[in-house]
Amino acid sequence: MSERLRLKKNADRRLKAGHLWLYSNEIDTEVTPLKGIEPGAQAVVEAANGKPMGVAYVNPHSLICARIVSRDANLRLDRSLLVHRFNQALGLRNRLFAKPFYRLVYGEGDLLPGLIVDRFDDVLVVQLNTLGMERLGGEVIAALDKVFSPRAIVFKNDSSGRRLEQLERQVEVVQGELPEQVLLEENGVRFVVPVIKGQKTGWFFDHRANRAWLNNLVAGKRVLDVFSYVGGWGVQAAAHGASEVLCVDSSAEALEQVAENAALNGLAEQVSVGEADAFEALAALKAEGEQFDVVVLDPPAFIRKRKDIANGERAYSRLNREAMRLLGRDGLLLSASCSMHLAPERLVECVRGAVRHQDRHGQVIYQGGQGPDHPVHPAIPETAYLKALGVRVFRD
Amino acid sequence: MSERLRLKKNADRRLKAGHLWLYSNEIDTEVTPLKGIEPGAQAVVEAANGKPMGVAYVNPHSLICARIVSRDANLRLDRSLLVHRFNQALGLRNRLFAKPFYRLVYGEGDLLPGLIVDRFDDVLVVQLNTLGMERLGGEVIAALDKVFSPRAIVFKNDSSGRRLEQLERQVEVVQGELPEQVLLEENGVRFVVPVIKGQKTGWFFDHRANRAWLNNLVAGKRVLDVFSYVGGWGVQAAAHGASEVLCVDSSAEALEQVAENAALNGLAEQVSVGEADAFEALAALKAEGEQFDVVVLDPPAFIRKRKDIANGERAYSRLNREAMRLLGRDGLLLSASCSMHLAPERLVECVRGAVRHQDRHGQVIYQGGQGPDHPVHPAIPETAYLKALGVRVFRD
Repeated sequence: MSERLRLKKNADRRLKAGHLWLYSNEIDTEVTPLKGIEPGAQAVVEAANGKPMGVAYVNPHSLICARIVSRDANLRLDRSLLVHRFNQALGLRNRLFAKPFYRLVYGEGDLLPGLIVDRFDDVLVVQLNTLGMERLGGEVIAALDKVFSPRAIVFKNDSSGRRLEQLERQVEVVQGELPEQVLLEENGVRFVVPVIKGQKTGWFFDHRANRAWLNNLVAGKRVLDVFSYVGGWGVQAAAHGASEVLCVDSSAEALEQVAENAALNGLAEQVSVGEADAFEALAALKAEGEQFDVVVLDPPAFIRKRKDIANGERAYSRLNREAMRLLGRDGLLLSASCSMHLAPERLVECVRGAVRHQDRHGQVIYQGGQGPDHPVHPAIPETAYLKALGVRVFRD
Repeated sequence: MSERLRLKKNADRRLKAGHLWLYSNEIDTEVTPLKGIEPGAQAVVEAANGKPMGVAYVNPHSLICARIVSRDANLRLDRSLLVHRFNQALGLRNRLFAKPFYRLVYGEGDLLPGLIVDRFDDVLVVQLNTLGMERLGGEVIAALDKVFSPRAIVFKNDSSGRRLEQLERQVEVVQGELPEQVLLEENGVRFVVPVIKGQKTGWFFDHRANRAWLNNLVAGKRVLDVFSYVGGWGVQAAAHGASEVLCVDSSAEALEQVAENAALNGLAEQVSVGEADAFEALAALKAEGEQFDVVVLDPPAFIRKRKDIANGERAYSRLNREAMRLLGRDGLLLSASCSMHLAPERLVECVRGAVRHQDRHGQVIYQGGQGPDHPVHPAIPETAYLKALGVRVFRD
């Protein structure tokens, strides 16, 4: 491999600490001009003194101009290393889960920057989120095939991250054939996964443990699931004994799937749906005098960039305030955020404000994050994004 | 009630946000001299404009000179309000736990500043940690008796917090008779609780959920439990299939209890003990070439005051570094801290440093806190103290 990237003096600290990203302003472009490197190529990363620190794939046009794929400068990310990393990732999941439904590869957290693979038994759904990984698409297919011999591999390349890397949208079955229905089981409940038409890979595995926690507390309760998507929270709550569940979402298609998933588990009677904007639905339910024992708030990311933090925090605050008005005298709020830029203590602050606004008392009895199939890289704070608070709300 | 505490201008913000503490420099002592109030008395707290904000008990000699016991200025904390709060606390625990073993009252988190009650079925162990609560000791006994009719109530008043409030040590059975053995069950495993001679109330309920998480991952593994105390982690691991467990503690008495608890669960063969300072034990095990699949680090608080943060973080770093040397090729580290002053991300940083120091890779697959019977008050960050990280450690 002939390509090299020379770091400026002191720009190696983050890498030494274990981080995998290089920013374009950290490259000594006099020694190694970034523009001289073919987009997507792999290069040896050198400290300012020339010492090799590892191998990265490069995108000269991105703010994060390179991502480390190995600390061994003699390696490069190819089919063989992909197979090795997939086996490492599988080793962890095999220890964690009895059934083959999980995030198999979580990008940087599994030392594979830019690559997501979700596993629905013998169907693998892949997201290539960087140019470097996009160029390795064929090798990814070959390596997945070698380790898993899947029935189908789907490229679900429609993430917002791809735009930053100037990549096109690509949603395609790239190997095998997709069965008519893709199914999964989570916490003992079955779901149909809308791989092609759904959000992201079709399912959000990250909340599995948080849902399991809530499932223990819903027997006999009336549950409101806001931003329900296909019913991950709501249908599971019904399966775990909730007396009545209302799933609210703005997508008619998602709500059809809620109904389908409820029926799949024999829960059609317990689960109803409402198509509406979340804020409007909360206001309408309040106006109708509705009350719930449990409210689940699992909104999409309100904060996508650092500059949106203030506005986003206001949105989370408002959402939690509106939702709390619907809780009965001694209720439970499950308040989540998938915004990496929202600090955990800021979500607590949103809940605190909502509790005080209602002159109630709150007890944070659970603080969950993303499940273990989304491992956090200890040197990369950006790999931790999910928050889920369980809050008992009561009047004194 | 005649006593009053007038706040300085703008000193009411924290209270309005829901916090329960007043600092002595926030009192307008010209209007309401702190020294005029009898230590332990209850007083109406007034905003700078004279508006009543609630009732607090007062300790003029403490930095936190008053703690709110109700936002209704017409109430005071007496037997009746204690009964009400105990019932509220019980309501939460009844929803959470099938068996009567839990922290029943967690101070500010249950709106009862300065009061801790741990429940071991019909034995209640109480800690009165402030002067205001100490003065209410008789009422606490009467209210607990009314709600629970316990077999025994024990005052385990030997916390370090009491010294700040200039209170004497008092360890005493204050009602009923303590049975020869106090037993508890946690995550399906039985333990003898050393109420009188043990640490704190005799047991650490706060790690219940974290132990449950680890229990799922220890089958067939060789486990090292450092700072084992009476074997909460180690004996549970053995009960959940660990092939071999070594509990290390500096207290011979605690280790006798480990052996007793192992025997109680028919696990005497799987569990062995080693009496040693933790750091010396880790060094010795390394020298002997020992390796473990799982290492649990549950040290006492290395940081007790804000000024100890830097030294404490060094101690956590060193501990994690030494422990990681004992992990096999693909191991699991459970790294905990009960220091409120250690920020969660700083414990991740200790683990990160240890992983890099060994030139290994780490995946943080679990970030747990205190169990739901230690509810965090959303306006009082000081009520959140426990951290437990689950980290997969492997070589690439």
